[in-house]
Amino acid sequence: MKIFISTAPFGEVDPRPRDILEENGVSYSVNPFGRKMRSDEIGDIISDYEILIAGTERIDRTILDQAGKLKLIVRVGIGLDSVNLLAARAQKIAVSYTPDAPSAAVSELAVGLMLNLMRSIHVSDRELHQGRWQRRFGERIGNSTVGVIGAGRIGSRVVKHLLGFDCPKILVSDPDPDIILPDSNTVERCDLGTVLQESDLVTIHVPLSNATRNLISDQELRAMKDTAYLINTSRGGIVDERALFEGLKGGVIAGAAVDTFDHEPYQGRLQELDNCFLTAHMGSMSKDCRSRMEIEATEEAIRFCRGEPLKQSVPEEEYGIQDGR
Amino acid sequence: MKIFISTAPFGEVDPRPRDILEENGVSYSVNPFGRKMRSDEIGDIISDYEILIAGTERIDRTILDQAGKLKLIVRVGIGLDSVNLLAARAQKIAVSYTPDAPSAAVSELAVGLMLNLMRSIHVSDRELHQGRWQRRFGERIGNSTVGVIGAGRIGSRVVKHLLGFDCPKILVSDPDPDIILPDSNTVERCDLGTVLQESDLVTIHVPLSNATRNLISDQELRAMKDTAYLINTSRGGIVDERALFEGLKGGVIAGAAVDTFDHEPYQGRLQELDNCFLTAHMGSMSKDCRSRMEIEATEEAIRFCRGEPLKQSVPEEEYGIQDGR
Repeated sequence: MKIFISTAPFGEVDPRPRDILEENGVSYSVNPFGRKMRSDEIGDIISDYEILIAGTERIDRTILDQAGKLKLIVRVGIGLDSVNLLAARAQKIAVSYTPDAPSAAVSELAVGLMLNLMRSIHVSDRELHQGRWQRRFGERIGNSTVGVIGAGRIGSRVVKHLLGFDCPKILVSDPDPDIILPDSNTVERCDLGTVLQESDLVTIHVPLSNATRNLISDQELRAMKDTAYLINTSRGGIVDERALFEGLKGGVIAGAAVDTFDHEPYQGRLQELDNCFLTAHMGSMSKDCRSRMEIEATEEAIRFCRGEPLKQSVPEEEYGIQDGR
Repeated sequence: MKIFISTAPFGEVDPRPRDILEENGVSYSVNPFGRKMRSDEIGDIISDYEILIAGTERIDRTILDQAGKLKLIVRVGIGLDSVNLLAARAQKIAVSYTPDAPSAAVSELAVGLMLNLMRSIHVSDRELHQGRWQRRFGERIGNSTVGVIGAGRIGSRVVKHLLGFDCPKILVSDPDPDIILPDSNTVERCDLGTVLQESDLVTIHVPLSNATRNLISDQELRAMKDTAYLINTSRGGIVDERALFEGLKGGVIAGAAVDTFDHEPYQGRLQELDNCFLTAHMGSMSKDCRSRMEIEATEEAIRFCRGEPLKQSVPEEEYGIQDGR
């Protein structure tokens, strides 16, 4: 079987994923562009391969129609919004992912973004490197009500980090009745509306699906305090970028930090705003997590080559929440 | 009695300190420069005042010699390295401070600086605002051994924040045998040498004194891992700036974040270095902490005016650790 690896970078931070492929004598090719591949670029080559190890490239029906030999897609990471799961199933293509591996890196990034937004430390760094000394006042996590939208693998870790800061209140919204929250009298479960209205910081940790597309748009931003900050390290598409731009420009909220975008690499009007902190989809980009993601994805591909059972098949409920575009 | 307030800003983030002064009918003047005053500027006016509410301006023997009426110095903040305590005592000038108020803001800043250093998020923000999309790998606090030098009011809070990140090991050095560490099997007490050698991140939370001046210089930097990061939110003078510049330039350590400097406002060669994150002494600059510091200092001055006992007199041991310059 031949493997195509469209995610980039691959094997850079840690050579072990390539070592595993070599040791198993598998034939593979890697994304030659060193950047996120476009759908047409994947479409051009996919017909030769049985296995695709993918990043967040869009794997839509058009690509799958050209993938006559494809038997397995392994997503390096957690979100499945980029893969048309129902179309894959219709063509008997199995889909696996590595949902646990990136969580720890994303949750730390979320806290880092909060601290930059609240204390303007990135601004001070830039100014001091330009020779300007200006002391700036800020806010404190430990003096804030923090809202966490989504308490799955990542959101629950964010809550754990926040407990170390003694926030007066941590408000958590999640549609799943079975989520388990830490036993702390500062953590409260509530609905999305309450999170938006009462929080000084709102951080989003939900997958992109039918139910979450444009979850945060004009109305939701207006429900927030005008002193509040919004952090999105989940997926572009969950926060309406047009609404966020207008909300930030008009002072509807105080600031935002955005790591994920509708189209990546991002080019857009948020780049014009001083109160919008931007990072290049770096949520999972700690070396340890990236390494774990690539190794787990590679091992899953090897299991498939050997005819062994898959370990991280996408669960059935993920198929139910997609819109089948 | 007349009060001079040399700290700046004062009463900006919260009007209550000025309200307290007005309500008590006290005569006061405020630093007219809106920036840190020089010793000669304080010397020029100090002879008129009984009480000085000071920031980190140098209150040395020369100034005290000109302060014929001065009876009380209240430091807005925690460090006492700027005040010549023994010379003040010789002139029967009482000294108070607000040691608890800034701690929570400093400890959060330290964590924010760690996350910027480890994940390069400030670099990504700058690049994306300039239209460049580059994903950068980083390290993770929760995958690091973190060294905490000094476990007093601020260092112990940093340890608490870190516990929320599940670090494999937190190494704490403190000369005080009576410090209390959290009951966690990841927190270990050890000597300074071990902290330096074993940590991926080293954060400093000690006062500046005879014992800590140039605590971190060439030898100590060379003892650290070349992949390690150093964070100083305590005081300039504790880290030898010349040694740090050379160590960062020569790759002796991977990076540093510096919030406090020998001379402030800082102008110096650290500004030339991309691997040195710089902030403008913003440790205590959260609005809630700054407000609390100013109110506590003002209330102490009012108590003194009324002949009431002081609540936050500098303890005797602080007099013992100064060099009496």
